[in-house]
Amino acid sequence: MVDQALTGAFAPVVTPFHADLTPDAPRFLAHCAWLLSHGVGLAPFGTNSEANSLGTQERMALLDHLIDAGLDARRMLPGTGCCALPETVALTRHAVARGCAGVLMLPPFFYKGITDDGLYSYYARVIDAVADDRLRLYLYHIPALSGVPITLPVIERLIRDFPSTVVGIKDSSGDWQNLSAMLDAFPGFGIFPASESLVSRASAKGAKGCISATVNINPAVIGQLCREWSGDNGPALQAQADAVRSVVQSFPMIPALKAVLASQRDDAAWAQLRPPLSPLSDTQHAALHAQLAACGFALPG
Amino acid sequence: MVDQALTGAFAPVVTPFHADLTPDAPRFLAHCAWLLSHGVGLAPFGTNSEANSLGTQERMALLDHLIDAGLDARRMLPGTGCCALPETVALTRHAVARGCAGVLMLPPFFYKGITDDGLYSYYARVIDAVADDRLRLYLYHIPALSGVPITLPVIERLIRDFPSTVVGIKDSSGDWQNLSAMLDAFPGFGIFPASESLVSRASAKGAKGCISATVNINPAVIGQLCREWSGDNGPALQAQADAVRSVVQSFPMIPALKAVLASQRDDAAWAQLRPPLSPLSDTQHAALHAQLAACGFALPG
Repeated sequence: MVDQALTGAFAPVVTPFHADLTPDAPRFLAHCAWLLSHGVGLAPFGTNSEANSLGTQERMALLDHLIDAGLDARRMLPGTGCCALPETVALTRHAVARGCAGVLMLPPFFYKGITDDGLYSYYARVIDAVADDRLRLYLYHIPALSGVPITLPVIERLIRDFPSTVVGIKDSSGDWQNLSAMLDAFPGFGIFPASESLVSRASAKGAKGCISATVNINPAVIGQLCREWSGDNGPALQAQADAVRSVVQSFPMIPALKAVLASQRDDAAWAQLRPPLSPLSDTQHAALHAQLAACGFALPG
Repeated sequence: MVDQALTGAFAPVVTPFHADLTPDAPRFLAHCAWLLSHGVGLAPFGTNSEANSLGTQERMALLDHLIDAGLDARRMLPGTGCCALPETVALTRHAVARGCAGVLMLPPFFYKGITDDGLYSYYARVIDAVADDRLRLYLYHIPALSGVPITLPVIERLIRDFPSTVVGIKDSSGDWQNLSAMLDAFPGFGIFPASESLVSRASAKGAKGCISATVNINPAVIGQLCREWSGDNGPALQAQADAVRSVVQSFPMIPALKAVLASQRDDAAWAQLRPPLSPLSDTQHAALHAQLAACGFALPG
C-alpha cells in the first residue's frame, strides 16, 4: 500500500455475471479498465457491486484478475467487510498483499443494536489480525443497509488508536448533518460522500472526492467535478453531474446502472443480476432511458 | 435427510470460543451432547449461535466435529443461509451430505427492499443448485435482524413449486398475527415459533414445537412443554418456561445465555463472545443472576 492519501472519484464497480450467475471476469476487467481510462479510481466489491452476493473466493479471484491483467492496484479500494471476522481478515490480507491503496470496510451487519465498544472491538481485532503496516482502512458508514451506524465516538477512538491505519470513511448516510459533523470533527481524515451531488459542498469543507454508484456510467464528468469543483467550471460540472444522478437514483440503483450499461454498450449480458436483486420492470426500463435521453446523457467513449 | 417431519424443541446452539476467538469445538460438542441428552434437537448456526460471525469453513468444521463424534444428524437443523448464494449453496450441500434432518435458511440479508420475485428467485436458485432430493428446507423469518421479511406469497409460491423440499419455517417475528396467519394459510407446514412462550397457543393451531434461544439453558422444561402442552401439566409447564424466558429476554440474549452457562457450569470460557457482540455489564450480570435465582432456575444436570 502507499502512504499517499486517496482523492477523487471512485466507482463502486458493478459486477457482471454470466447467465449461470457466475462472475464474468472479462467484462469486469474491461469495465474497470474503461473506468480507469476516464480518470476515476476503483472501489470494487461495494454495495453497488453486489459484493455481499459474492463469496469470498469469488471476490479474491476477481481482484486477482484485475491486478494480474496489469491494472494499477494503487487506484483500488476494494470492499472487504463481511459479517464474520475471519472472512473480513482474509479479504483484507489479500487486498493488502496485492498492493491495493486501501480497503473499504463495512461493519459486521447482521446483529443490530451493537454497542460502540463492540464495533470498536471488531475493527481493532481485524487490524490486529491483519497485522500489516501497509493497511489503509476506510470505514464504510451505510446505516440504511447495514443497520449498524459507525458513530463519531467509534471513529474518534479508531483514529486515536490506529492513526496510520484508519485513514478515512465513506459516508453513505445521505445525511448532510452527519457528513458535516465528521468533516468538522476529523480534519485531514479521508472523508468521501457517497454521491457526487455533495461534492462541491463537502469538498469545500475538506472532503476528498466521492465514491458513488453513478461513477460507473458517468466517470468523466464526476472525475472532473472532483478535481475542479472550486474552479470557474465547478457549478456547471456540478449541475451536469446532478442531472444524471437525479434520474438514476429515482430507480433501484443497481438494476438501473446495469440496464444503462447493457443498453448503451448494446450488450444484454450486462443486465444480469444475482438474486435477490431483480431487474427493472419494462415500465421502469423505458422511463429510465427516456429520462436519461432527455438530459442528453450518453456513456463516454 | 429423512422424510419424517421435525417436531419438538430445538436449540439454536450457542457457539463457544477460545480466548483467541477461534471456535471451541470440544465445548461445542459437549454442549450439543448435553442438549440432546435432555431430549431437544439442535439448530446450530442460528442467530444465537453467532453464526453470522463465523466463516463458512468454520461452520462446516464444527458440524463435522459433531457428526464425526457420533451425534445424530437426524436431530440437526443447521443454519445455512448467507448473503451470497454460492456460500449458502456450499453450506447446504454440506449439511445434506452429512445427513442433517434439514437446514434453516436465512434470506440474503444485506440488500433491503427486496421484491417477492427476487426473494423467491434466490431460494429457487439455491434449491436448484443443491440439486438433492434429500434437502428439507426450513425458511427463517427474522425481519428485525435480516431486514428482509419472508412474505406469505413467497412462502406459498415456494411450497407450490418445491413441495417436498420447502417444508417449514421458523418465525422469529415475535408477531402473533404473522404466526397465526401462517398457521392458517399453510396447514401441515412445519411452523416453529422462536419462543417457548408461544408453544401452547401456536401448537393448538398446528405449530410443531419451537426453535428458541433459551432451549440452550432450559432444554428439559421446554422439551417437555413441546410434547405435553395439551396435557394436564401443560399450563404449569408453560408457566415454568415463561418465567425463565421472561427474565433472560430482558437482557441482550446471546451474552445472557453465555453468562448463564459460564456461571452455572463454573466455566468462565463460556462467556467469550465474538465481536461485534459485547458481554453484559457487571450490573446486568448481577441482575440476570439475581432474577434467575428468584425464579428458582438452575441448569439441569
